[in-house]
Amino acid sequence: MRTRFILIQTSHAGNVGGTARAMKVMGFDDLVLVAPRWANVLRREETIQRASGANDVLAKARIVDTLDEALDGVDHLCATAMTPRDFGPPTRSPREHFRQLLAGGPGQSDDDRAVRPAGVAFLFGSERFGMRNEDVYRCHACLSIPTDPAFGSLNLAAAVQLIAYDWRLALGPWGSAPISNPQPRLADAASVAGMLAHWEQALVAIGFLDPAAPRKLMPRLNQMFNRAVLQEEEIHILRGVAKAMLETAARSKR
Amino acid sequence: MRTRFILIQTSHAGNVGGTARAMKVMGFDDLVLVAPRWANVLRREETIQRASGANDVLAKARIVDTLDEALDGVDHLCATAMTPRDFGPPTRSPREHFRQLLAGGPGQSDDDRAVRPAGVAFLFGSERFGMRNEDVYRCHACLSIPTDPAFGSLNLAAAVQLIAYDWRLALGPWGSAPISNPQPRLADAASVAGMLAHWEQALVAIGFLDPAAPRKLMPRLNQMFNRAVLQEEEIHILRGVAKAMLETAARSKR
Repeated sequence: MRTRFILIQTSHAGNVGGTARAMKVMGFDDLVLVAPRWANVLRREETIQRASGANDVLAKARIVDTLDEALDGVDHLCATAMTPRDFGPPTRSPREHFRQLLAGGPGQSDDDRAVRPAGVAFLFGSERFGMRNEDVYRCHACLSIPTDPAFGSLNLAAAVQLIAYDWRLALGPWGSAPISNPQPRLADAASVAGMLAHWEQALVAIGFLDPAAPRKLMPRLNQMFNRAVLQEEEIHILRGVAKAMLETAARSKR
Repeated sequence: MRTRFILIQTSHAGNVGGTARAMKVMGFDDLVLVAPRWANVLRREETIQRASGANDVLAKARIVDTLDEALDGVDHLCATAMTPRDFGPPTRSPREHFRQLLAGGPGQSDDDRAVRPAGVAFLFGSERFGMRNEDVYRCHACLSIPTDPAFGSLNLAAAVQLIAYDWRLALGPWGSAPISNPQPRLADAASVAGMLAHWEQALVAIGFLDPAAPRKLMPRLNQMFNRAVLQEEEIHILRGVAKAMLETAARSKR
């Protein structure tokens, strides 16, 4: 299964190197940095030192400006955040969530056939202020690593290491045959985000959403659609509905 | 249960700091260094920086000359080593071993009474040459963390983090209640059906659904919403959207 680690606004080069090493040691190599503090972070001395040989992960890593650009090809997003957010995704421990996810957990099954994601991304916020609410809202689950209530200060690369380890063990150790189920084509995160943007526009046009008082409507719809595990076909339908709303609203103003 | 982390001949100050942090975040504070490279390692700048607030662990840590001096009060020793040794203890994955150990596993029980150790120590060798055979031989088990066969280079502090995490989860998390999300009120079938009827009407009104050629649109939406396991609150939102669509359509026909 495609597995991506996404670091958002990371400020310490050592953590980028430590992340590359933590990923590689668990057999993962897809790293994306969103707006890191240092544009040259992948080539900094501290990064390379802490990567300790995981140079191919650094060489392959991409730097992008926005989270949107980091989400191609992944359809299940896991936030890692200390504090749950109202209207955010459900908070789960990594092990519990991975077990459910790979079993095609609650609300994921259709006709007794488990729908497993095609690609998973793990999102990590900045060392200083964690993840922004709007990034958390997009996620399907918020992974909470159990830590001492009196000292929850988990290092970023250490958090990556723990998630990579639990995910690797959940996937099954190396060499085991992947489980394959015939399944519908799931919409990836970019396609869900595009549909939601289209809907937001439409809901404003028909007067249901007041941009001045959004009342968390879009995060709520985002969570609802996340739970549905949308298929590509359904994205087309939902975009068709948005288009019809917009056209009707335009006619109503003539 | 008493839990000690023992670093043997550690050469990087950053790893000592990272170890202190990794321990504390999982609720452990008993650290012993055997013959570290730097005598003043507990006070070095890099150590303190990487400890990131785990200063009490550093303050409490002891430095000793030999492994023997590090073992008071612990009766179960776990080596961490990449390569099993002939004549060494059995190699196990951390999770498997912790489960057996806490259940009073094989070789641990006496008169049908599970014997749990009073104190456990985890031993970590130096960054450069790992653990010496004679230190491994003293251990009750050799913990092997699953890593990519092609890149097993796990950072020392990262290894401590993984062991501390698995051990903490095996011991059972902190007294805090398990992570729970308030259970939302789910919509019953009648309420979903009522919402869908409302939507059908609205989709016809905005011209998206042609009653003469419905193309299974409503069954598809029904399936999609079923998968989302709708909450009552969401039914209100979706009915609000339908209402706004109907009103906009009415205005467009004036």
